[in-house]
Amino acid sequence: MIQASSDAYFMARAVKLAERGLYTTDPNPHVGCVLVKNGEVLSEGWTQRAGFAHAEVDALNKTPDARGATAYVTLEPCSHHGKTGPCTDALLAAGIARVVVAMVDPNPLVAGRGLQKLRDAGVEVVCGVLQQEAEKLNPGFFKRMRLGLPWIRSKLAMSLDGRTAMASGESQWITSPQARADVQRWRAASSAIVTGIATVLADDPRMSARVDFDAEQPVKVVLDSGLRLPPTAKLFEAGTEVWVLTCSQDTEKADRLRAVGCRIFQIGASGGHVDLRQAFRLLAEQQINSVWIEAGATLNGALLDSGLVDEWLFYLAPCILGSEGLGLFHLPSLQSLADKKSLRLLETRQVGPDLRLRYRCEA
Amino acid sequence: MIQASSDAYFMARAVKLAERGLYTTDPNPHVGCVLVKNGEVLSEGWTQRAGFAHAEVDALNKTPDARGATAYVTLEPCSHHGKTGPCTDALLAAGIARVVVAMVDPNPLVAGRGLQKLRDAGVEVVCGVLQQEAEKLNPGFFKRMRLGLPWIRSKLAMSLDGRTAMASGESQWITSPQARADVQRWRAASSAIVTGIATVLADDPRMSARVDFDAEQPVKVVLDSGLRLPPTAKLFEAGTEVWVLTCSQDTEKADRLRAVGCRIFQIGASGGHVDLRQAFRLLAEQQINSVWIEAGATLNGALLDSGLVDEWLFYLAPCILGSEGLGLFHLPSLQSLADKKSLRLLETRQVGPDLRLRYRCEA
Repeated sequence: MIQASSDAYFMARAVKLAERGLYTTDPNPHVGCVLVKNGEVLSEGWTQRAGFAHAEVDALNKTPDARGATAYVTLEPCSHHGKTGPCTDALLAAGIARVVVAMVDPNPLVAGRGLQKLRDAGVEVVCGVLQQEAEKLNPGFFKRMRLGLPWIRSKLAMSLDGRTAMASGESQWITSPQARADVQRWRAASSAIVTGIATVLADDPRMSARVDFDAEQPVKVVLDSGLRLPPTAKLFEAGTEVWVLTCSQDTEKADRLRAVGCRIFQIGASGGHVDLRQAFRLLAEQQINSVWIEAGATLNGALLDSGLVDEWLFYLAPCILGSEGLGLFHLPSLQSLADKKSLRLLETRQVGPDLRLRYRCEA
Repeated sequence: MIQASSDAYFMARAVKLAERGLYTTDPNPHVGCVLVKNGEVLSEGWTQRAGFAHAEVDALNKTPDARGATAYVTLEPCSHHGKTGPCTDALLAAGIARVVVAMVDPNPLVAGRGLQKLRDAGVEVVCGVLQQEAEKLNPGFFKRMRLGLPWIRSKLAMSLDGRTAMASGESQWITSPQARADVQRWRAASSAIVTGIATVLADDPRMSARVDFDAEQPVKVVLDSGLRLPPTAKLFEAGTEVWVLTCSQDTEKADRLRAVGCRIFQIGASGGHVDLRQAFRLLAEQQINSVWIEAGATLNGALLDSGLVDEWLFYLAPCILGSEGLGLFHLPSLQSLADKKSLRLLETRQVGPDLRLRYRCEA
């Protein structure tokens, strides 16, 4: 009982440490590790940028002698050679006596092999401490490993009466500076920002994560069935990766985009548009864990119809634009109340004068 | 200092007692009273139904001897003869030595005269303890006394994308049973429920407060410029008062409505409709403290434009109806973002699976 409660205590600390990697570990999961001996913390570690130390190695690097210690890790240690060596080997070499993990790594390259290797070497292994909390650390990585799809969030900004813009299209500054800064943090925590070509042509967005802390810039992804993206678009300015997912075979247009550094991916069409499921599968194959969508009513309607989005975030500005304004979801096939799309409230938060409402898709 | 803090303590209790009258004291304000002697509570009172005891008399009735006691009252005691005798006289007759009130009664029949009468009789009087809290007890009564208008709330029920119904008009059961029960409590706490004739003709609502506790039924008010209200409408069924505010001079239609117990009020027209400011002024003259509006997009648009509404309550169901659905506010004159209507968030509350968002009109 005392052992179990101190296991939870140190694992909770490891969860907090894992969160330090929220903006930087992509495509790896962010993991935390605490090394403990005789009830005292020897060192703490967390996953560094891809290619650098995983959490276990980061913690081991910070203590001269970990022999006989217990390692608390939010995810099963890896047993395979990736960009870095297997963490199991490092733990064994350091003489760790006991390993407590929150959950098995769903990565098929690991999937219990890490724990087995430790057990085989005589290390005591405990699995499942604070598993729920650990699951929440990396919804994208885990979904990609389990289902071959990224964790998908779509963001909408609207007036209280559900309008994104005036009928004329005029739309700047509906939400507050605080809400827009919040959006930048969500962007920075995402592997990719996705939008549709219509939004790029209408708004010419930069699609970068403008934050005042160290963060990996997300890949910019444009769903552009007809390759209409102009090579002069602002999203090319920042120098970060731009990917275009298209159904077009127009090699001339593709070459013009490649010339400005763009990667082009061929996707099957569905109803004249890029097939959404194929698009997200491709992104997962390209190691995209989490997707942040900022799109218009047409793409959001198609996304809602597809059932592919995991979370919808609504930023609700305290103003009324009137029923002439533009709506959020173009859903021409929704004609009867019985067909309404149901969501489930996850979280309400005030952000400046606005509200941020986070909903889960009811599958 | 000790005196001041115990004054606030007993006044806080009086505020809680006042709330017991939320559903019953109309058109009187709900007031609470605590009688205290030597630091001990002698008795507690609160305003009963109109025509019965006010808070002070209710408390005095509950103690055999209040001589030398302090009376804590959330509102200045009345000094005039209404349906009951003046509370100041009752306090003096009981030998109360000290009276602490939260605020002066803005009723022009009182307006400081009650406190003056007590001071003139040698009673120690303190005014202003927990004034803000006391103000919140009776926003309707106070606004009516100060401005000759009731406190006006309008309720909207909508999907997450700001739709009240399908394009076809199909609209039943967007929000949850919990949200609808919450609406019934707001209705019960209001002096009048107001709607437009279009809503009556479309939905034939009963417009009663269906609650499982003792409550005064609100007056049902229909804004009906052309006297189109059918004498067979469901809102006549419950037997509570029905008032029609009209610009029509059609005596035949008026007589048919009077025959089923309806009161008809003539109001000036504005743009072909009942003039809203005149309508609310008339309701205040008829001792309506608070108004609860449940209307359609046309009336809500006109109300928003008028700036007359104090609070907007949005019930947000966790579903999407799509951009074909009907909107909340018909505001044809709103064409530019600069003209958007701004509100200020007062409160967010989860009601079952729905959210209730309460906003204040930014004047």
